[in-house]
Amino acid sequence: MKATHNQPVKIIPLGGLEQIGMNITAIEYGDSIIVIDCGLSFPEDEMLGIDLVIPDVTYLMENADKIKGLVITHGHEDHIGAIPYVEKELNMPIYATKLTMGIIENKLKEHNLLANVRRKVVKHGQIINLGCFRIEFIKTNHSIADAAALAIYTPVGTLIHTGDFKIDYTPVFGEMIDLQRFAELGKKGVLALMADSTNAERPGFTQSEKTVGRTFDHLFDDNKDHRIIIATFASNVDRVQQIINSAYKYGRKVVVEGRSMVNIIQTATELGYIRIPDNTLIEIDSIKNYPDEKIVLITTGSQGENMAALSRIAASLHNKITIKPGDVVIFSSNPIPGNEKAVFKVINELEMKGAHVIFQDTHVSGHACQEELKLMYALTKPKYAIPVHGEYRHLKRHAELAVEMGIPKENVKILTTGDVLNISDDTFEIAGRVPAQGILVDGLGVGDVGNIVLRDRQHLSQNGLIIVIVTLEKHSNQILAGPDIVSRGFVYVRESESLLDDCRLVVEEALDECLRRNITDWGRIKGSIKDSLSEFLWKRTKRSPMILPIISEV
Amino acid sequence: MKATHNQPVKIIPLGGLEQIGMNITAIEYGDSIIVIDCGLSFPEDEMLGIDLVIPDVTYLMENADKIKGLVITHGHEDHIGAIPYVEKELNMPIYATKLTMGIIENKLKEHNLLANVRRKVVKHGQIINLGCFRIEFIKTNHSIADAAALAIYTPVGTLIHTGDFKIDYTPVFGEMIDLQRFAELGKKGVLALMADSTNAERPGFTQSEKTVGRTFDHLFDDNKDHRIIIATFASNVDRVQQIINSAYKYGRKVVVEGRSMVNIIQTATELGYIRIPDNTLIEIDSIKNYPDEKIVLITTGSQGENMAALSRIAASLHNKITIKPGDVVIFSSNPIPGNEKAVFKVINELEMKGAHVIFQDTHVSGHACQEELKLMYALTKPKYAIPVHGEYRHLKRHAELAVEMGIPKENVKILTTGDVLNISDDTFEIAGRVPAQGILVDGLGVGDVGNIVLRDRQHLSQNGLIIVIVTLEKHSNQILAGPDIVSRGFVYVRESESLLDDCRLVVEEALDECLRRNITDWGRIKGSIKDSLSEFLWKRTKRSPMILPIISEV
Repeated sequence: MKATHNQPVKIIPLGGLEQIGMNITAIEYGDSIIVIDCGLSFPEDEMLGIDLVIPDVTYLMENADKIKGLVITHGHEDHIGAIPYVEKELNMPIYATKLTMGIIENKLKEHNLLANVRRKVVKHGQIINLGCFRIEFIKTNHSIADAAALAIYTPVGTLIHTGDFKIDYTPVFGEMIDLQRFAELGKKGVLALMADSTNAERPGFTQSEKTVGRTFDHLFDDNKDHRIIIATFASNVDRVQQIINSAYKYGRKVVVEGRSMVNIIQTATELGYIRIPDNTLIEIDSIKNYPDEKIVLITTGSQGENMAALSRIAASLHNKITIKPGDVVIFSSNPIPGNEKAVFKVINELEMKGAHVIFQDTHVSGHACQEELKLMYALTKPKYAIPVHGEYRHLKRHAELAVEMGIPKENVKILTTGDVLNISDDTFEIAGRVPAQGILVDGLGVGDVGNIVLRDRQHLSQNGLIIVIVTLEKHSNQILAGPDIVSRGFVYVRESESLLDDCRLVVEEALDECLRRNITDWGRIKGSIKDSLSEFLWKRTKRSPMILPIISEV
Repeated sequence: MKATHNQPVKIIPLGGLEQIGMNITAIEYGDSIIVIDCGLSFPEDEMLGIDLVIPDVTYLMENADKIKGLVITHGHEDHIGAIPYVEKELNMPIYATKLTMGIIENKLKEHNLLANVRRKVVKHGQIINLGCFRIEFIKTNHSIADAAALAIYTPVGTLIHTGDFKIDYTPVFGEMIDLQRFAELGKKGVLALMADSTNAERPGFTQSEKTVGRTFDHLFDDNKDHRIIIATFASNVDRVQQIINSAYKYGRKVVVEGRSMVNIIQTATELGYIRIPDNTLIEIDSIKNYPDEKIVLITTGSQGENMAALSRIAASLHNKITIKPGDVVIFSSNPIPGNEKAVFKVINELEMKGAHVIFQDTHVSGHACQEELKLMYALTKPKYAIPVHGEYRHLKRHAELAVEMGIPKENVKILTTGDVLNISDDTFEIAGRVPAQGILVDGLGVGDVGNIVLRDRQHLSQNGLIIVIVTLEKHSNQILAGPDIVSRGFVYVRESESLLDDCRLVVEEALDECLRRNITDWGRIKGSIKDSLSEFLWKRTKRSPMILPIISEV
């Protein structure tokens, strides 16, 4: 199919709106599709037992022959985490900057996919051709090095996708964001800007990453006599660099703990994104050779994650590090909404063991605040604005800001995951929907846990379960054995024997009633057991356990 | 037993430390015990299916004959919520100020206990005699009216318990905190200060409740053309009063929605703690008689609670209120840690329906910040400091602040729930422990859900359950029926039939093996089924459902 120039481009977000996480967007024109990012998200509270959520790529699978490539903006889980799952189905060539690709390759290795997936490292400023699209990688700043915005040159005009970005005039590593290029593109004409909405509610300007380095220096200076433990995001290579800088300056050795932290630092070091002075990094087992005040431990667990190193240290479950009175623990992070209680739990545990915990003023965000977003609009002057990367409340504030920046209201659109947006100089409308619900991953199972299973888990988690077992004689339906009652997660049985005895009586009565009324259909017998038992239990306990009647016939 | 004057007083916190909630403290001397507050707490995330947690009063029950009374500082759930449960066991006379008693009486009515429990309303400044103790109620400010601190005159000296307090020089209703009385007591000599630690991490001074009223005026002025909906804590009577004031000033009618809000406003109105101008309050059904811009709705649900009015409104589940584009929704509250995600979910839902949500700058705390705590120490000059009401991190900051205020380090003690502190002029030491774990309430069951039940619920919630049913022939142990496999919360069965078929094969093999090896003990047969099935499932799915083998014999 050959595209005519009247045709609009399609922009199809397959994830990443409404909730932060699972970023993936398809851009389509004629026989060409490119995919931007391929992230996962972590389960919501009600998704019991789910490990992670990946995007539904049904639409991409139906159009696999059109896909020219997967273009990645940066190496965070919510932008690259679903790559192994999706590549198993689609095998798209991947385009990304050097560090981003390094992190992706670690992921592919873990899934034994490295040999199968075509990959091309792209430099900032470089333009690649994918079908009818040309894509330019533009330098940005973010809380992970080597982030890129994308200028996507399409037959109907230029789209700019910022990826996750902030404006850091004094970055720790490498160059500041290429504002001149955004300006140049704006001067030539930008059809649409798709920009990061995460901090659209926050006024002002995000602080430079470098300010955290100064704070570290002060903290190292204030705590010269104590061991220092710093928890931060594994992927924030610049943060780790600054901790190493302060450690070196104040004559401390650095120990790195936590698998993801060790992996990323290794990759970043190999690729030249982090510079560790000789004799600074030591193995965790060598700690004992140094006095406390000569050690700084960099660790995962800044979000209070159960299994992360810092949580295990705080709970005395770590086999190499024990908190001592006087230890100074710095949380170089803010709790992501939903993690507050877990973080406070870890802080309480650390302080009970005598540590002094510092959890303020040692973090800056990686996302643009309102003034940065305004600057991005001022430079690119897009015709259309499509806020991306945020919950609805962020997208909406961003949309309001775009209008303040002079974009006509009708040229600003908040999309929903799965929308198909038709865009061209004279078109800007949602023209359809594609499947885009997240796919739940539980263990090795991808998509085999759905709403029914989750509802059962929810039910079981709240009130537990009662199993009623009866053996009936064939034909006569006389009780041969049972009813026996087995419960799990319902009540502490030893204290509630009389309750379970009463349950047995209730079931016997229900069975007798069925017999009297000549009910022989198992479905109806089970229904009758369930109804009478659940009514009895609600009256007696105000609880509704799951009731599973099991009938065997001999 | 007659107390000698060398004997110390015992202070026994039975709840309320480590976690905010479930405040209850016993003070004991000789044959007298008084109990301060009797609160509940809400379940932690891992307490699946639990409705609330109440204190363990074993120690009080063993010493019931000594108890002279229950003295209440204020009417919040974490200070009065467990009264109905505990009064069923202990039937203590209750002493509280007027509004606090009104709220307690509502609670007792709900539990049909009003006639059984002796109650005495106490005024600020009044002193009551309870056994060897004299207790004075001292006026304080808090986020609920009629809060009191307690001066407890004991044979070994004066203890001051602040309850929850802040210093509000310009309270909305009634007097400011009686700082002069604290000063007077301090001048005479205070043995120990037990003060609120909630905001001990926050520098500065808590803003006056009145500042929120000014903000409301501005918001009413800015939004003259829109319906206004305000969510706040039901018990914050002064907040409600200020909303009513602004409504009256700007010519709006007030509708109150949410059961707890309606109850408390009714009680507060009856007792004279809130003044509603005539013709201001209207019934929810009369809304239709007024234009939107003449309505303000005050509602529960400021914490994103699932069943509260605002959450139901946001989810379009409320049968009387529907959000319209242009509605202004104000969250006059801060999310309590752990509730952030639920609050943001409600905000997103409201904004998707076109509401404009304001959730900043319309709340002040009810708890003293650092400068207020310092003032309390400066006025009372206690010999000993015992921080109360907080997680460990709050208690610790409070303890540090007490030391800064000149209390010797050894005279400051962070207690743990269940500690017995001996205190007198020359004693300040933990002399023992009493049982003090929270008791879990699930439906009507109090204490019948323990660790085993919770662990089962946890297990079921993560991976669901597989039941294996086999009927064996007596003696021969030949399989007569089954094995049948029933699963719940494990996988979506229709897509996984082959997996369950394979499970059946695994179980058959395990049974054959048992038969071959002449294993007839049911325990061992069940163990063998469990082991082989769980190994098979882990290999195949990386999941560990609960496996329940059920054998019947005919």
